[in-house]
Amino acid sequence: MTTENKERTRRGGGRKKLAATRGATGPPQLPFGAIKNPYPPFNILSDDQVQTIHETSLDILETIGMRVQNLESRELLKQAGADIDTASEDIKLDRHFVEEMITGLASEFDVIARNPEKTLTVGGNNLCFATVCGPSFVSDLDEGRRRGTYDKMCDFIKIAHMLNIVQHEGGAGFEPLDLPVASRHMDMMYAQITLTDKGWYPCWLNSGPRARDVIEMTKIALGLSEEELLNTPTIQSGVNTNSPLLLDDDLASGMIELAKVGQPICVTPFTLAGAMSPITLAGTLAQQNAEVLLSACIVQAARRGTPMIYGHFASNVDMKTGSPAFGTPEYVKTTLASAQMARFYGWPFRSSNTTAAQSVDAQASYESMMSLWGNVLSHTNIVLHGFGWLEGGLTCSFEKLILDAELVQMLAETLKPIGFTKADLAIEAIADVGAGGHFFGTPHTMERYQNAFYAPMISDWRNFENWEEDGSKTATQRANGVWKELLAAYEKPPIDPSIEEELQAYMAKRKEYYAAA
Amino acid sequence: MTTENKERTRRGGGRKKLAATRGATGPPQLPFGAIKNPYPPFNILSDDQVQTIHETSLDILETIGMRVQNLESRELLKQAGADIDTASEDIKLDRHFVEEMITGLASEFDVIARNPEKTLTVGGNNLCFATVCGPSFVSDLDEGRRRGTYDKMCDFIKIAHMLNIVQHEGGAGFEPLDLPVASRHMDMMYAQITLTDKGWYPCWLNSGPRARDVIEMTKIALGLSEEELLNTPTIQSGVNTNSPLLLDDDLASGMIELAKVGQPICVTPFTLAGAMSPITLAGTLAQQNAEVLLSACIVQAARRGTPMIYGHFASNVDMKTGSPAFGTPEYVKTTLASAQMARFYGWPFRSSNTTAAQSVDAQASYESMMSLWGNVLSHTNIVLHGFGWLEGGLTCSFEKLILDAELVQMLAETLKPIGFTKADLAIEAIADVGAGGHFFGTPHTMERYQNAFYAPMISDWRNFENWEEDGSKTATQRANGVWKELLAAYEKPPIDPSIEEELQAYMAKRKEYYAAA
Repeated sequence: MTTENKERTRRGGGRKKLAATRGATGPPQLPFGAIKNPYPPFNILSDDQVQTIHETSLDILETIGMRVQNLESRELLKQAGADIDTASEDIKLDRHFVEEMITGLASEFDVIARNPEKTLTVGGNNLCFATVCGPSFVSDLDEGRRRGTYDKMCDFIKIAHMLNIVQHEGGAGFEPLDLPVASRHMDMMYAQITLTDKGWYPCWLNSGPRARDVIEMTKIALGLSEEELLNTPTIQSGVNTNSPLLLDDDLASGMIELAKVGQPICVTPFTLAGAMSPITLAGTLAQQNAEVLLSACIVQAARRGTPMIYGHFASNVDMKTGSPAFGTPEYVKTTLASAQMARFYGWPFRSSNTTAAQSVDAQASYESMMSLWGNVLSHTNIVLHGFGWLEGGLTCSFEKLILDAELVQMLAETLKPIGFTKADLAIEAIADVGAGGHFFGTPHTMERYQNAFYAPMISDWRNFENWEEDGSKTATQRANGVWKELLAAYEKPPIDPSIEEELQAYMAKRKEYYAAA
Repeated sequence: MTTENKERTRRGGGRKKLAATRGATGPPQLPFGAIKNPYPPFNILSDDQVQTIHETSLDILETIGMRVQNLESRELLKQAGADIDTASEDIKLDRHFVEEMITGLASEFDVIARNPEKTLTVGGNNLCFATVCGPSFVSDLDEGRRRGTYDKMCDFIKIAHMLNIVQHEGGAGFEPLDLPVASRHMDMMYAQITLTDKGWYPCWLNSGPRARDVIEMTKIALGLSEEELLNTPTIQSGVNTNSPLLLDDDLASGMIELAKVGQPICVTPFTLAGAMSPITLAGTLAQQNAEVLLSACIVQAARRGTPMIYGHFASNVDMKTGSPAFGTPEYVKTTLASAQMARFYGWPFRSSNTTAAQSVDAQASYESMMSLWGNVLSHTNIVLHGFGWLEGGLTCSFEKLILDAELVQMLAETLKPIGFTKADLAIEAIADVGAGGHFFGTPHTMERYQNAFYAPMISDWRNFENWEEDGSKTATQRANGVWKELLAAYEKPPIDPSIEEELQAYMAKRKEYYAAA
């Protein structure tokens, strides 16, 4: 099945061109498909500096070490040959052991979607943008900022499904706080599986039992046996570390559960410079790298060859208030530098589209643009929190979802090379129009006008008078109209009812277990 | 004097580092100084494609030609060896003549400011950002959008003077429509000369007499003779062409007047793809290049060796409404490609910070961010309209001025390399803090916290509750507060009163002439 999926993807989405399409309803959109950055990555570190970060992080692991609060992780490391005392949480790793454990891993793999046409390759010069996950709050212009609910979460997934530029469902958008905390990860995943047919990032892998639920539901959704899953990198799991230099019991056990079934592990240290990592960016990069490498050793000790993804979240705190800052110059620089570290190890790279703005205003727009340019220039393979993130990740905004879709579409279009055929050079059209003429209405223009330029979803290019007459709407107000239009046009993608039934049965059984626990 | 200016600049602004400074009053700002892009330019054209644009533009000049409505221009070309009939406005130029005329020009030169500390180098990897010029309207949140006035224009220049990141006064911001059209260019220039001591772009060089006024006022302001001016590239003149393939009498005569006194000429074709140039970007680039090269031939025929600046304005029109679109993916691509053409000829490059948004909202923010990333990645040496441009250039906004200052500061900070000293790598600080600790308050943090990170002017990073309690202000509303703060703190830079008197006397004489004309 995996091979077939790959083939179908290659024949389907993989070859689709990013040309503008305009449906009968809804805003103009680019078609679903891979975004590739055909230009070299933007490097801000020299090769020597990359080597220095690597060596410094090995020094950290060798001389300072890291605290791993999960016994199984320490036992796995010991079995793999690490010279450690498993009775102590504080472990130090020899640099040669680390270097040996992290070599020879996959640099590219497919992430299987329920709809094989939407399977995408992670790695290389492929850029994948996924929706936000994690916020407790949800907001829109109509109802303001409030606690997340399951109904609203389903609306978010539906709108994201309708946006072609959303390539992966990133984790259901936000927490449905109206559901029990112990089991809601399954409700979230059920919504992801059934309301969209795109690839998805499972919700909350931060414990062994939760990770097992994700594995079981994935097997049901994709019709895979445990054996088949082992050879199908399907679940992209995001695991944070508790920076500085700490990996707690729950995070480690979730990571190991997924590693054992060969699922790609993205390790993302939570390094906010000045608080959870040194105030200097080089120090933050070195600490981040140490935490990634130690986590990779545990993953590889659990199952050798499990694909790794290098995760980046390094930003800085506002030293006046202690608040995290996002989409800053420092954030762009650590994105570019971290991507170089990922390339040094030959792993795919993950970053985010972030902002600390509290409303969908000019700040949200420019901080996201900073983040996204960093993502694009660095060849970020997976942009988590790509759509909808607001307020440092505390809130998921429906208008921000649409704004981000516009921004990512603009960047995807920017990456399309300029055509250079004879007809593109247009010397005959220039001759026909002549000095002081006009290109409107010429055959050269008429043949191309429908798809010549990027067609925006929310940018308003009318003159001031027309804009004013139409209510002087801001881009954010226009985004409000767009998500409602998409939600109204939503159609549930087909799914075998027996899959839904099997998922429901699994969840019912597990909810009994969680309720009793 | 020029040499001394250069020396003082090198000792002063030239060596200043871009570290955050926080004055007793006003928002945090980076210090005044050169912005350098230490990374290679981002090239989207292959060398072959650059050559193709060059050759196609020579084909255009050889086979289609251009209409030059200024007799002196044609006579100068003829004297320089062009095989043309000066009686005809429609001229064609042999490719060898063109190639011969445009070689060997300066790739870098200083632009002299009234305050030598603010003299900056144009070219190479230096980026200079200047304020907007040209709009008829002005807007702010208090009074809305209205016709430009002289008083408000002076306020704009004063605020721009107070913003360190504004490196050049770009042309007084907007038109004071309350002054007579025939002579207001002198009032604008008087305000530029006296209200700020930064380098300035003269206002409206679009006729021979106006260009002469600019030359005379520059000589008075800087204490230069005509002979000294000839060897001092001081006045950066922006000259548009009337695309497609037309150069009118006024524009050509202004250009020649300045070329004769050796002042750098920036030629910027007005190519909106689909209207004034082909709908294809390659065609637009070829036509733009042809117009730049022909204009350069006229400039070089007027005075051989006059420095050239390659100007870019190529964007696209919205094919639904015919409105110009700015800050689009197409705009970024033509910026990057045009900069490659400038490098091909070895000239400095000029582009802009543009948006078609009608208010200072998320769209204004992301379209400007698109433009500015294009500017930075392409090594745009002069970013005209860098601060304050709104509504496709019809309006100058005071809040946009502040927003743009924030954006340009963020990009300047992004270009600062990451420090890699032993102390930056912070392995001792990491050891001291240890697993699960915190970097707040450590000596390593305390020694650096004041200048470690970019300090924003309008970004609000407080938590939602504090932000809400403070009035739920958008970034645009906060920008409104910032420009008022800067205007209140404005102090006029010192100027010899005799210079002001001499300028006033010159203007009085010329206003009599214009009134009589």
